[in-house]
Amino acid sequence: MHQLKLKTTQRDQIIDISPQCADFVASQDLTEGILLVYCPHTTAAISVNENYDPDVKSDMLRFMRDLIPQNAGFDHAEGNSDSHIKAGLFNFSQAFIVADGKIQLGQWQGVYFMEFDGPRHRTVWLKGMAG
Amino acid sequence: MHQLKLKTTQRDQIIDISPQCADFVASQDLTEGILLVYCPHTTAAISVNENYDPDVKSDMLRFMRDLIPQNAGFDHAEGNSDSHIKAGLFNFSQAFIVADGKIQLGQWQGVYFMEFDGPRHRTVWLKGMAG
Amino acid sequence: MHQLKLKTTQRDQIIDISPQCADFVASQDLTEGILLVYCPHTTAAISVNENYDPDVKSDMLRFMRDLIPQNAGFDHAEGNSDSHIKAGLFNFSQAFIVADGKIQLGQWQGVYFMEFDGPRHRTVWLKGMAG
Repeated sequence: MHQLKLKTTQRDQIIDISPQCADFVASQDLTEGILLVYCPHTTAAISVNENYDPDVKSDMLRFMRDLIPQNAGFDHAEGNSDSHIKAGLFNFSQAFIVADGKIQLGQWQGVYFMEFDGPRHRTVWLKGMAG
Repeated sequence: MHQLKLKTTQRDQIIDISPQCADFVASQDLTEGILLVYCPHTTAAISVNENYDPDVKSDMLRFMRDLIPQNAGFDHAEGNSDSHIKAGLFNFSQAFIVADGKIQLGQWQGVYFMEFDGPRHRTVWLKGMAG
Repeated sequence: MHQLKLKTTQRDQIIDISPQCADFVASQDLTEGILLVYCPHTTAAISVNENYDPDVKSDMLRFMRDLIPQNAGFDHAEGNSDSHIKAGLFNFSQAFIVADGKIQLGQWQGVYFMEFDGPRHRTVWLKGMAG
């Protein structure tokens, strides 16, 4: 599998990784199939979102901070139970269709890495399956 | 890949697309493998739910409307940040096992398109993988 | 496909099924590919989480109980609409990369069955895809 390396700069942050996903598919002998984008962490997620208006990303992060506050009386000593819950709700991987040698995204869709416990050095795993 | 066309009639709505998914698998030379059901939008989702009591769907939509109100002080000018968040939480695709030429669902499961910003014309992408 | 059988003992409970997933991959002629872990129920989910501090699991379950109370004025006669919503938010399946004949998990990751309407006898379906 292929690995992307990311460096996040805030506690919660949404980073567009669509270009790296497209580059990976282009680098493979993968005309038709699927692409699995997988997050090997437990406090970050992979999701899909609008890639046009940046307000969507800031609205989403602020809403999630209010819904699941960092200090909501959690027991976990690391103080990031909120991050684990947010990551679980958004999911740790996303699968995409590959056709004509390209990742197929809807018109407004981008692939996003969702940091919920940064800043950290992070990795994303990419796996193509032909078929 | 195959495309389903849907027309939703309400702002939020849960539509059973299990028959179309089953028909697609039956139309393919796909005996064993997986089926990826993918939503190419950013304000709608694909999920799985009980296909028996319609109260489950209305309970779910009402709870999500209360949890993430449309007018929760969001900045996004289109007024549908709530829809983006709901779609992200329910996920943009679901993968299913295909065995003996049929999509494998649990006894009470159906495949559902979840509209969070209708009414709109919507598309669902279906991709079978043999293996 | 392969079936795991589980018996849950509480209404909500998070059970580590990583060993069974690893055993399944080892039992297959599957060197490179993906593993789909699928929950055929509508009130339980498959997710990924930290496999180290048990406080993460109890924090998560308590938060979800408070966020989506069992008696939140739901109509569904079975009294488990909260369970359906929680399962939908955490997702019914997870896909994992298989490389060198092993399921690839991040350092702190485990595969978890998430019960939201137990205690019950439950089944998990496992499907390997080579590629």
